[in-house]
Amino acid sequence: MKRDIPKYKVISEEIIQKIESGEFQPGDKVPSENELIEMYCVSNTTARKSLLEVELQGWAKRIKGKGTFVLNRSEDRHLTRVLGPFHAVKESFNDNLIREGFTPKNIVLEKTILEDGISSNINNHHYIIKGPVLKIHRLRYADEVLLKDETRYISLTLCPKINMYDLDNRSLISMYENIYNIKLKNVERTLGNTILTSFDPKNYFENEIPMAVFVLDGAIFSDDGEIVEMEQSYYRGDKYKFSIIAKPQFSGEKHKS
Amino acid sequence: MKRDIPKYKVISEEIIQKIESGEFQPGDKVPSENELIEMYCVSNTTARKSLLEVELQGWAKRIKGKGTFVLNRSEDRHLTRVLGPFHAVKESFNDNLIREGFTPKNIVLEKTILEDGISSNINNHHYIIKGPVLKIHRLRYADEVLLKDETRYISLTLCPKINMYDLDNRSLISMYENIYNIKLKNVERTLGNTILTSFDPKNYFENEIPMAVFVLDGAIFSDDGEIVEMEQSYYRGDKYKFSIIAKPQFSGEKHKS
Repeated sequence: MKRDIPKYKVISEEIIQKIESGEFQPGDKVPSENELIEMYCVSNTTARKSLLEVELQGWAKRIKGKGTFVLNRSEDRHLTRVLGPFHAVKESFNDNLIREGFTPKNIVLEKTILEDGISSNINNHHYIIKGPVLKIHRLRYADEVLLKDETRYISLTLCPKINMYDLDNRSLISMYENIYNIKLKNVERTLGNTILTSFDPKNYFENEIPMAVFVLDGAIFSDDGEIVEMEQSYYRGDKYKFSIIAKPQFSGEKHKS
Repeated sequence: MKRDIPKYKVISEEIIQKIESGEFQPGDKVPSENELIEMYCVSNTTARKSLLEVELQGWAKRIKGKGTFVLNRSEDRHLTRVLGPFHAVKESFNDNLIREGFTPKNIVLEKTILEDGISSNINNHHYIIKGPVLKIHRLRYADEVLLKDETRYISLTLCPKINMYDLDNRSLISMYENIYNIKLKNVERTLGNTILTSFDPKNYFENEIPMAVFVLDGAIFSDDGEIVEMEQSYYRGDKYKFSIIAKPQFSGEKHKS
């Protein structure tokens, strides 16, 4: 460390540099006070000042009782979502937005119990979720911009009376695991692509010119092969990017041969 | 097995059933003659007849010296590409198409050596590949339909004189590994979404009405952190679907906490 610059400033600059380089991504937690104390051998006053400095410069935001999170400062404030790892599937849509500095809002368009099942085509498989199912059709906003038009079908056989819970502010997947003790096996998802115009009566995005949207079809399976949930959602194409990281050392892959 | 139906017919029906259910996907290899002999305890004549029957019914195609592969019979003949696993990244674009029963074709629009490097934004990181690089801009067709407008930038420092090789009919990644002995660490990719119109001078898809396309930005890293290749490609949205499978038991994930 240089002599003239105060320690808290050196530490905050290092954190900011990691945000700028992308090592810390929007929504990521930066090191906590205790972690900084250990990493840099500094007092808790210095550690606290370091985090405050990062926050004052507008790079991160402290969320009470949770930590300090990197804000989304991309020019167009687009969102990047990681595809693949299961922990990413589990995260709550709203919690993610809050961590990146957005204000989330949900509008429930429909919440219905369907006695019959629903079928869907995912990764070229034809899947059926047996009735009764709870259908929830929600519009999901960040800072008053509609990001996602989401429809989920939840098995009421596997998750009885799930419609009694507040479903808006928690991860549904955590509910399946923690309230209904369902062991989840895997999540299969297909990402397609379409154009929505203002003439489409089912288009809630209210775009005036045609807009590219991602179409997500997904199914979540329990350990004994039953479908817990199916999803059919639209993500606006100008606000979303999906990221995929592949590593050769991942084993246990199904190889085409 | 039932008595009246010949054995080869029973076996071929089982294979066809697995294709119909999606257990065998387009491009997948069905069991070989030797595998059928072992699985069903039948003669090689019966095994051969079984595979021939599957082929005659139009479900699969034998590729000499390679095996029998499931044809793409989806209504719109769209292609599903698996995102995530590294082995999928390694597969040759053309080999994949051939296995699904398409006739691939490449048109090289540009093949240039750039002395300066190229920079790109992938998963919110700003990456630079140092010059000189080989730029290859190719149009990739299946059955005369343009599927992918692909531009790849290959490090000529890491892969000297790679432009001397036939790059059209092999996987570039296998070349990096096998010819240049580069140990690959990982592949990072971002999938975005845009609309291409007929007015766009850089749009080679020749669509008359606006079309949704996937935009792929990717970088391949060597073991010592250098960028071997960067890619900027467009996939036509009406012909592609991407599939993602997430499993909780995958360990070694980077957890947001």
